[in-house]
Amino acid sequence: MVNSGRLTLRQEDLQDFVRGAAFLGTGGGGDPYVGRLILQQEMAKGAEVRILPLADLADDALVVPVAMMGAPTVMTEKVPSIEALQRALDEVARGAGRKVDALIPLEIGGINSTMPLVVGARGRLPVVNADGMGRAFPEIQMVTFGVYGCPISPVVVANELGDVVTVRAVNNKQGEDLARSVVVRMGGAAHIALYPMTGADVKATAIPDTLTLALDIGRIIRTARAERKRPEVALCDHVSRLPVPRTVKVLFDGKIVDVRRETKGGFNVGSVSLDGIADWQGVFKVEFQNENLIAYHDGAVRAMVPDLITLVDRETGEPITTECLKYGQRVKVIGLSVPPIMRTPEALATFGPRAFRLDHDYVPLEEIR
Amino acid sequence: MVNSGRLTLRQEDLQDFVRGAAFLGTGGGGDPYVGRLILQQEMAKGAEVRILPLADLADDALVVPVAMMGAPTVMTEKVPSIEALQRALDEVARGAGRKVDALIPLEIGGINSTMPLVVGARGRLPVVNADGMGRAFPEIQMVTFGVYGCPISPVVVANELGDVVTVRAVNNKQGEDLARSVVVRMGGAAHIALYPMTGADVKATAIPDTLTLALDIGRIIRTARAERKRPEVALCDHVSRLPVPRTVKVLFDGKIVDVRRETKGGFNVGSVSLDGIADWQGVFKVEFQNENLIAYHDGAVRAMVPDLITLVDRETGEPITTECLKYGQRVKVIGLSVPPIMRTPEALATFGPRAFRLDHDYVPLEEIR
Repeated sequence: MVNSGRLTLRQEDLQDFVRGAAFLGTGGGGDPYVGRLILQQEMAKGAEVRILPLADLADDALVVPVAMMGAPTVMTEKVPSIEALQRALDEVARGAGRKVDALIPLEIGGINSTMPLVVGARGRLPVVNADGMGRAFPEIQMVTFGVYGCPISPVVVANELGDVVTVRAVNNKQGEDLARSVVVRMGGAAHIALYPMTGADVKATAIPDTLTLALDIGRIIRTARAERKRPEVALCDHVSRLPVPRTVKVLFDGKIVDVRRETKGGFNVGSVSLDGIADWQGVFKVEFQNENLIAYHDGAVRAMVPDLITLVDRETGEPITTECLKYGQRVKVIGLSVPPIMRTPEALATFGPRAFRLDHDYVPLEEIR
Repeated sequence: MVNSGRLTLRQEDLQDFVRGAAFLGTGGGGDPYVGRLILQQEMAKGAEVRILPLADLADDALVVPVAMMGAPTVMTEKVPSIEALQRALDEVARGAGRKVDALIPLEIGGINSTMPLVVGARGRLPVVNADGMGRAFPEIQMVTFGVYGCPISPVVVANELGDVVTVRAVNNKQGEDLARSVVVRMGGAAHIALYPMTGADVKATAIPDTLTLALDIGRIIRTARAERKRPEVALCDHVSRLPVPRTVKVLFDGKIVDVRRETKGGFNVGSVSLDGIADWQGVFKVEFQNENLIAYHDGAVRAMVPDLITLVDRETGEPITTECLKYGQRVKVIGLSVPPIMRTPEALATFGPRAFRLDHDYVPLEEIR
């Protein structure tokens, strides 16, 4: 069960795929449900989704990520517009003076796993089996593309009305800040195309085979549910046999006793607290900014960004996004480690704990306790 | 003393010119002092300011306004960057696929009277003797160019760091909103180029000879001061003999007893209250959003936007901007009517009282009382 990067995504795979993408969304990334519906509609019309293994990408290809940008709470209300994504993409192509050869997800977590698939299906463009986050992150400079030298600009922001804003920023963080102000003004969610890259750039900076990983995680959860098994066991087994092995840990098993949430500066910010169930004692707390950032058990850190912290329904294994957290829900908190490309000093400078103003040095998930 | 549109602006004219521009700024538009210093520097280096009468403009010329956008309080601290203005202009030219033939002020009031002169002097481009506001307004869709059909887009926003954001909006108000969000994120003030127009567009929509008007008003105030006369008398005489005659009225003579001011959404918003001096009884109040919008005498409206309401120092006649209002200042409040092109139903829909959420139908200055 080793990823080769080859992947066929059929209509009947989509539910598994978006379940896995929601898991990788680590609480954020927006609910991929709407993305799946739009994609299903395209595929029902006969459109094909072509996935390109990273190895098959030509070095001189022009590859462009397309995505939704905004607060996940808003994204569940503002339906993505394929036309607006296409307009953003066209503007990047116009700036580059050539046609786009392939799309790539900015992030595999949440709704943005599906956005390039939708645009690719409509426009007959392949989608590279890789992404720039290996999960979801709240800010658009928090991608390996940028960490390893690809410029964010132009960031083209488009809305469904036809407004198109092109940001050319002196650095990637500034690109985030300026694009964010536009997204907030557009109502809290908008469509973006950014980081135009060559195939060689993508091969050097992307996290490989994450579309396959999303599909595999979704299948594992569904199968475990059908067989009344614990999904984390099969998940643990699966990720340990990846070409770049990973760690899965159950961090807590409990009942939600408090949820604090606000929309601030275009982000969902807050925390969720759990009381232990069964063998689990004490209080567990997860803090988030769109995505889950850090988990404390009785005040001691159990996992932290960029490692993934995902809450799943205790019975069904279904991933739960931060905007769907409710008092009384029974959940498991699962940790998933990220690959080494996301743990270098330069990667941690961009999306490690201190990049989120958390006063902790990064400790890898597998080394905690 | 009729305007022909011909105008030579020498170094020794600049103080008069910016005094008149401050008067036409009607309390806002930013302090033109800094603009004058920069322009003087350019002229001292030998750069020439070439003013083009509206009638001499070729119909197929590409004419572009350049300006500062932001809260005047911020603009007095963030020094304009000629390089950033030039970058914004270059981006408009790149989008248009041709070189710019002439510049034009977006607004004659305040600092933006000088911005095209500065860029024109540096880049050897003529500046058209006309503008789009005939005064200063707080928002960039509030120009006759837009009222009479010229699209605002692209609005290119540039800062001194090198960030460049290009807004292509579906309508002019949306252009304002999106550009404003970028300006606020850039620190509250930035450099813009927008409304790329043909010479024919400009002739059809601009307010003619306003550079000349600024210089004339500045001279009249200086001369009256030297001769210990009341500037409003000479001003009244001057504007009544313009090709399109106007009205000047002294609205009040008083002492500032209250100033309320806050920076909100990128604007200076507030009001100033005066107690009468000499023959003037009662309480006079002026409300502003960057610029003075409406004046009440004991609760009755005495003047309203788009007519100009300017506070000048009681002794020197020097115009006072809203950010320089101080308790105890003795001031005269002067009203100046705008030409008919600014009083049509479509003009008033864009910058009449209701466009500022004032619950009044427009009544021309000369018809009040």
